[in-house]
Amino acid sequence: MLALTLTHGQLALQTDYPIPVPGPDEALLKVRLAGICGTDLALTAGYKGGFQGILGHEYVAEVVAAPGHEQWVGRRVVGEINTTCGYCHACRRGLLTHCQNRRVLGIINWDGAFARYLVSPLALLHPVPPSLPDDMAVFTEPLAAAFAALRDAPADAGERIIIFGDGRLGQLIAQVFQSEGYQPLLVGHHPAKLALAAQRGISTALQAPAGQPFDIAVDVTGNASALQAIFSILRPRGTLILKTTSAHPTTLDMSAVVVNEWRLIGSRCGPFEQALQAMASGRIDPRPLISARYPLEQALQAFEQARERTSLKILLEP
Amino acid sequence: MLALTLTHGQLALQTDYPIPVPGPDEALLKVRLAGICGTDLALTAGYKGGFQGILGHEYVAEVVAAPGHEQWVGRRVVGEINTTCGYCHACRRGLLTHCQNRRVLGIINWDGAFARYLVSPLALLHPVPPSLPDDMAVFTEPLAAAFAALRDAPADAGERIIIFGDGRLGQLIAQVFQSEGYQPLLVGHHPAKLALAAQRGISTALQAPAGQPFDIAVDVTGNASALQAIFSILRPRGTLILKTTSAHPTTLDMSAVVVNEWRLIGSRCGPFEQALQAMASGRIDPRPLISARYPLEQALQAFEQARERTSLKILLEP
Repeated sequence: MLALTLTHGQLALQTDYPIPVPGPDEALLKVRLAGICGTDLALTAGYKGGFQGILGHEYVAEVVAAPGHEQWVGRRVVGEINTTCGYCHACRRGLLTHCQNRRVLGIINWDGAFARYLVSPLALLHPVPPSLPDDMAVFTEPLAAAFAALRDAPADAGERIIIFGDGRLGQLIAQVFQSEGYQPLLVGHHPAKLALAAQRGISTALQAPAGQPFDIAVDVTGNASALQAIFSILRPRGTLILKTTSAHPTTLDMSAVVVNEWRLIGSRCGPFEQALQAMASGRIDPRPLISARYPLEQALQAFEQARERTSLKILLEP
Repeated sequence: MLALTLTHGQLALQTDYPIPVPGPDEALLKVRLAGICGTDLALTAGYKGGFQGILGHEYVAEVVAAPGHEQWVGRRVVGEINTTCGYCHACRRGLLTHCQNRRVLGIINWDGAFARYLVSPLALLHPVPPSLPDDMAVFTEPLAAAFAALRDAPADAGERIIIFGDGRLGQLIAQVFQSEGYQPLLVGHHPAKLALAAQRGISTALQAPAGQPFDIAVDVTGNASALQAIFSILRPRGTLILKTTSAHPTTLDMSAVVVNEWRLIGSRCGPFEQALQAMASGRIDPRPLISARYPLEQALQAFEQARERTSLKILLEP
């Protein structure tokens, strides 16, 4: 089958990659649409020490085979990306996205969605509501990650929220806080991206305002060295949600965290059902974030555009 | 009066320092006993960019004057160390230890307790129960800071807690978790200090054990570069309480915080009443941590001993 693979940091389009075979309680999925994520770009730059295989962990697909579970065949699904072993320390505590033996779709030991087909455990799949078009459903995984920011920093009414980073995930997080009744400020360096958020009624700025500090800050800059600047606008006992997975260590004055009694909360994967419902109800519409669609055959060009600073979401159509 | 002052990083014993004069709603206190803290040592090394004045923020004292509030005179008291303005953003939110205009006793713009006398706002004073001897009461401020670790990381029953740093504050934090029914592990580099904790039935180790990760870790090493190693023993979604106020920035892989969804919680000052009650009830006894007592006249020698790695609490008797 056609597949976009990463081998020793090199992207390549392969035409004869074997179609994967579902094991027990797994399904074979035909990819309908997939999205390129910042993590995909980071993986091509060496993040996680060299994944080898098919990239891609944001997708909507159709179940074409599910041996022993034929009722799944024909369903349109989205899928969570962390497998669970069920017996490790994390799984036994119910920390299902933290399985110590996990494979992660298109990231760790599991061929991803930039291909005609992929295989997934049935337990990770969520049926897509019929009313939800593919070009919204494909945002379920990143939108769930955006909802994780809200889960990890429960805000009181009226609290001041600032989001650093006007990229895909920053935009989705801004929409999530807005959809929950908050008035977040989205800060970024790209006027065209900020304009997209402004069209939805989200406040935007090219830099954080001086004056009254913020209760909750979210770092989605993708740049670990941005943290020290974010420190300066956070109130005492404020919360900083960390979303940046940069391959590079950063230098920080951690004594400021102690003196100000800040809470730094790492935040990764989130609730798929909440994301599906928010889109199905129309409260959140991620489609204005789509910068371009490419057929899978042009995946290399798609990655080139995804690397441009002006790009938001780039979709691949297998 | 006799006072130990810090001027451009130089400690000096002055014999003719003016006795301070209490303002409205303030008291003049005669110091009975004071303790040297790691922050005092950090201040002499340049932390906070150069405090000038009398050091010392751990004390027990007697009220000798309180104009307009004579009922306070004769009371034995301990005192909180952060003043409040009442009108700044933090004060209006009730974040009383975070007043943006605060003076901090012996740390920021307020002469401290390594002197015959000090002045304090009455609002910061707590009467000491008659049964509590001075050499326990003098630990109220650091013990309150230890209780702050418990407040900032509410642990579930049976959760595994590890404390890095066998110094004064690490020992107190271990006692706090023990007194609340947990079985913390105290890790440090000093067998004699660990033996003190072991005598109270606290588990100790020279290094963190491999294997099952911990739910809650507390960094009281005083060494910001210890954090990266602490990361390796924390379970996914675990909590790391930060107590180290080091003058030096540190380099960290913050993507590990994101991927593991850790919570890093800065923790500073704590509840005085809880500390007083824990000591008055006998649940916590900090006196075995006293390494030596010096008359204030020998404060320079006391600081020398406090800097030795084998020292725990050094007290000054004005």
